[in-house]
Amino acid sequence: MIRVGVIGYGYWGPNLVRNFSESAECEVAVVADLREERLAQVRRRYPAIRTTTSIDDVYAATDVDAVVIATPVSTHYALASRAFKAGKHVWVEKPMTATADEGRRLVDEAAAAGRVLHVDHTFVYTGAVRKIHDLIHGDGIGDIYYYDSTRVNLGLFQHDVNVIWDLAVHDLSIMDYLLPSYARAVSATGMAHVGGGHEDIAYLTFFFDGSLIGHVNVNWLAPVKIRRTLIGGSRKMIVYDDLEPSEKIKIYDKGITVNADAASVYQLKIGYRSGDMWAPQVEIGEALQVEVSHFAACITRGEPSVTDGRAGLRMVQALEAASMSMRDRGRVIELGSV
Amino acid sequence: MIRVGVIGYGYWGPNLVRNFSESAECEVAVVADLREERLAQVRRRYPAIRTTTSIDDVYAATDVDAVVIATPVSTHYALASRAFKAGKHVWVEKPMTATADEGRRLVDEAAAAGRVLHVDHTFVYTGAVRKIHDLIHGDGIGDIYYYDSTRVNLGLFQHDVNVIWDLAVHDLSIMDYLLPSYARAVSATGMAHVGGGHEDIAYLTFFFDGSLIGHVNVNWLAPVKIRRTLIGGSRKMIVYDDLEPSEKIKIYDKGITVNADAASVYQLKIGYRSGDMWAPQVEIGEALQVEVSHFAACITRGEPSVTDGRAGLRMVQALEAASMSMRDRGRVIELGSV
Amino acid sequence: MIRVGVIGYGYWGPNLVRNFSESAECEVAVVADLREERLAQVRRRYPAIRTTTSIDDVYAATDVDAVVIATPVSTHYALASRAFKAGKHVWVEKPMTATADEGRRLVDEAAAAGRVLHVDHTFVYTGAVRKIHDLIHGDGIGDIYYYDSTRVNLGLFQHDVNVIWDLAVHDLSIMDYLLPSYARAVSATGMAHVGGGHEDIAYLTFFFDGSLIGHVNVNWLAPVKIRRTLIGGSRKMIVYDDLEPSEKIKIYDKGITVNADAASVYQLKIGYRSGDMWAPQVEIGEALQVEVSHFAACITRGEPSVTDGRAGLRMVQALEAASMSMRDRGRVIELGSV
Amino acid sequence: MIRVGVIGYGYWGPNLVRNFSESAECEVAVVADLREERLAQVRRRYPAIRTTTSIDDVYAATDVDAVVIATPVSTHYALASRAFKAGKHVWVEKPMTATADEGRRLVDEAAAAGRVLHVDHTFVYTGAVRKIHDLIHGDGIGDIYYYDSTRVNLGLFQHDVNVIWDLAVHDLSIMDYLLPSYARAVSATGMAHVGGGHEDIAYLTFFFDGSLIGHVNVNWLAPVKIRRTLIGGSRKMIVYDDLEPSEKIKIYDKGITVNADAASVYQLKIGYRSGDMWAPQVEIGEALQVEVSHFAACITRGEPSVTDGRAGLRMVQALEAASMSMRDRGRVIELGSV
Repeated sequence: MIRVGVIGYGYWGPNLVRNFSESAECEVAVVADLREERLAQVRRRYPAIRTTTSIDDVYAATDVDAVVIATPVSTHYALASRAFKAGKHVWVEKPMTATADEGRRLVDEAAAAGRVLHVDHTFVYTGAVRKIHDLIHGDGIGDIYYYDSTRVNLGLFQHDVNVIWDLAVHDLSIMDYLLPSYARAVSATGMAHVGGGHEDIAYLTFFFDGSLIGHVNVNWLAPVKIRRTLIGGSRKMIVYDDLEPSEKIKIYDKGITVNADAASVYQLKIGYRSGDMWAPQVEIGEALQVEVSHFAACITRGEPSVTDGRAGLRMVQALEAASMSMRDRGRVIELGSV
Repeated sequence: MIRVGVIGYGYWGPNLVRNFSESAECEVAVVADLREERLAQVRRRYPAIRTTTSIDDVYAATDVDAVVIATPVSTHYALASRAFKAGKHVWVEKPMTATADEGRRLVDEAAAAGRVLHVDHTFVYTGAVRKIHDLIHGDGIGDIYYYDSTRVNLGLFQHDVNVIWDLAVHDLSIMDYLLPSYARAVSATGMAHVGGGHEDIAYLTFFFDGSLIGHVNVNWLAPVKIRRTLIGGSRKMIVYDDLEPSEKIKIYDKGITVNADAASVYQLKIGYRSGDMWAPQVEIGEALQVEVSHFAACITRGEPSVTDGRAGLRMVQALEAASMSMRDRGRVIELGSV
Repeated sequence: MIRVGVIGYGYWGPNLVRNFSESAECEVAVVADLREERLAQVRRRYPAIRTTTSIDDVYAATDVDAVVIATPVSTHYALASRAFKAGKHVWVEKPMTATADEGRRLVDEAAAAGRVLHVDHTFVYTGAVRKIHDLIHGDGIGDIYYYDSTRVNLGLFQHDVNVIWDLAVHDLSIMDYLLPSYARAVSATGMAHVGGGHEDIAYLTFFFDGSLIGHVNVNWLAPVKIRRTLIGGSRKMIVYDDLEPSEKIKIYDKGITVNADAASVYQLKIGYRSGDMWAPQVEIGEALQVEVSHFAACITRGEPSVTDGRAGLRMVQALEAASMSMRDRGRVIELGSV
Repeated sequence: MIRVGVIGYGYWGPNLVRNFSESAECEVAVVADLREERLAQVRRRYPAIRTTTSIDDVYAATDVDAVVIATPVSTHYALASRAFKAGKHVWVEKPMTATADEGRRLVDEAAAAGRVLHVDHTFVYTGAVRKIHDLIHGDGIGDIYYYDSTRVNLGLFQHDVNVIWDLAVHDLSIMDYLLPSYARAVSATGMAHVGGGHEDIAYLTFFFDGSLIGHVNVNWLAPVKIRRTLIGGSRKMIVYDDLEPSEKIKIYDKGITVNADAASVYQLKIGYRSGDMWAPQVEIGEALQVEVSHFAACITRGEPSVTDGRAGLRMVQALEAASMSMRDRGRVIELGSV
């Protein structure tokens, strides 16, 4: 049984505490938050969980194997670093750190401490994304041409980050998990419209090896909620709509065929192929439950986390590069290798 | 009665001949095409229209007041230029010319000849776009924050242009017509996947004065057809879905409110306002019929064309700049003023 | 503060206990259920609530003002009747009783006891249905021509009732609340397909005064979930789709106009009027919270319940008549007045 | 080459003339209509087709093999009967005749004359309905439980028939073609709201052998257009939405399983099975083109028409019975066998 201490009981904390509590492999020993009224809520719902306003209590607790960090991103590095010093494993919310430099140090510290560093890229653990992973890594889709996601809605504005760090990070982690290679470079554009100066709209293009291209459209100022991703392959194409109650994934037997023998571009024979559509059944269990179980296996059986510190670092590098590109109106930024 | 000669009876030509024929103000005198079998089709449907495989016949015809050019873009400048020399008015398909340099010369030649130069940016004449124009230039939407369009489907691949020149040109002309100012700069990305080398996917960001931003997502390799544009304003927001049989335009009384008195970004109070949605009735007549009537008025009453040579030139400049930016992976290109 | 005792903690019971607990005007004193494991769940979530496997404890409790009955319908009458004898008010789940005869007796007993008899027709308390009520009873819709509802999905099969008693009851209560008069007669058809003999598909037509007609399509064997109601008026028409996350109600400024002066049916001039569509903002709070508050007001301030015993009786009469008509393949059954 | 004479060039006539003209197996010799302005339209579009205001010319024409009747239903019998007397084959619009009595006589007259009697039940020839036919008569759907269609929109009101004869006839012919047996009885309800007295809303239930049930909801007063049919089988279920531009047919691998060993209804174990959804590619060619070709084959090769006079008669009997039931508020009417 893995015993965790949760730091931060804000927007996402309740989901974490609930899922760790319901897990057969984990239990929550203590929850820390600076706000006493939030802790009162914990005690009402979970009388057996200790609460504290001092994070020292979490690190000092001998019945805490792992620290779960659900605080603003600017605090992630310091809190996770201290956990490793205290010999604890770490589950940290996305984005892993506020800078790539912090991220690199955290990855090193986890390795040095021999502890698990797991980043909560929740979407990777949904039934839909895992089903797409199976499809892509099976034999049906062919070469991947593009990943094109639209993730827009009204709000919620964040005070400390722009829309890229809030919404695009989801697509970055999905691409990181799904696609056959990691992004090589990014060009981003965006704009801030309301007080505070953080961009509320952004468009990110990622370049990969070969002709694979990724695009992410994120927007805090949209009148309708859209969560739709198109993935084009040489053999089949996928539409993934996360708002569909059922049929989240549709696979189209569509594509084009090119007659390579054509003597010139003007004789190029391009054919269109249009076949059946197929919507496979997708597991609908809660992603966090799957992820908590995976985290426990990482600790107890030494499995590598699917969304480990290196994945977390790749995301932070990409977010940092995209923000830099956006400030420079689309100037392409190469992404270093991790 | 304006008598026109149509050059080119390919994909769009039949729509032009039909609409000029049905117009009360125009009639078609002659249709030219190099393919005899296309001309045979004209004669079957319109026994009264002359046909010819020689464009000389069109320019020489004394009963032709205006030349309608529906040929590949690479021929537009030469054909239109010759029309002005022959004293004819010109209706030319979009994009107006293959290069901005040709475009500038054509605008000058039209002015020197004192003839009408009209570019067929059809969407500007649809009931939906004109209704949005009324809304934006009325008082309801507030300051425009963004224009964000997705225009994707499977095919039709073109031999001589990339997807920007084929699909994005529609959004460029709609933005040119709707928005309070013209685009100042563009950053574009894209990729070619199939033989021929022309990009089949492209993402264009346009920068305007102030915080207005435009984005266009065009794709010839999408499994589903999408024609959706979000337009965000400080007071209201619009969703324009051209595939909706009715309710093409929805206006959302939604937005955010910012408490400007907040001492710091962390105390920033952002409120969300969510009210009714309203789908105004939109005129459903054929856009080309409206446009033919407008073209006739330009000739007979000297009205300026809403999509005149200068608009056509702005589009060609933007397409040229976007293609250049795309080859350079998003490098921003300033757009000169016309 | 109204103190309630809840009998039955099955499918709906948890929602009732949660809403009564969260109400500022009510609190839950005791929950009774025959299944100890269900009671254990209550104690885990609500340590302050007493639990019992003996309903006697509920009736005997001096700190219980009202009994909330959420058991199978066959037990409703006996449990409610006993509550009145014990001087308690009653909230009973729909349908109120298993037979109209029981229903009549229960209404009389409530009156004799001077206690509140409230039936949980939840839909009547949703923001959507109340908004439609305002629209119909305001001046915009005109004369109501029809109410046409489709309420289908896969399962959940019930052991003791057919699909009419499970699903159609919702529409009966909505019609009872919304329409200007009560139904006069019913013709129903339906069919049973799977073991057990209860009809899983049914079609009900209700006849009202004048030309108002109501139709309800309910089905436990549908591959997709549909919850859509069309309401046609002489001036406007409403589409109410309960599955829409927003825009649950759409009002169409559409209709027909008839030229009454036409000399004969063959000269009848029928015109079609097609105008804007409007989707008003609908309150999205939980209906049960509104209903609990209303129930408290009925007890403390003597307000009549909007869904009182007489409404409950009308529903049971209609369900009984519809089932009878269905067994007789559509034979019309007159509905007595209550 | 089959040469046809078309009587009636109103709403549907132009589609018939166009499809017979474009057919490789048929040609239109003459078109008759009482309205000279309609005939002028024919001559403009088809200079080679003769026109006449006298139907005598059609019957007398030696170059007419078949008469195509597209006039109001009240005239169908007389016009078709005369065609048989003149030795012509007959294509008649739906419904075949105004009464079942006329229908019986027409079937007999066709047989006596040895001529083809084909009724234009167009939907039977669509790619979607034929694909469903293949699915049902293949092995995938299992026993058919129900056919449930909603076919509603605003208008067009007809002067001489009610909404059953106008809209429900489509579903009757689809059921007649698709289902394993013919309907045995009907119960219908409906209402007239606007001048003229013909019902504008109707609900029809058809009873078949076994537990198969059919339901049709037709409405001329609906604010939205719906063309959706659910077909439930013991193994799979179909949703057919004719307004979907693609994916008109969706097949759901869903259903219920019943544990027949259960000792009593209360222990009945009902399980829900939910699997993939599949949307097969459907032929999108024009149904009339397929039907014209079939009609030609009936004449030249003696093939039986899929929608022959007996099918047409079954439809008229069902329409007559449904209208009678509707006047009697749902009284069930047995359908005689043809």
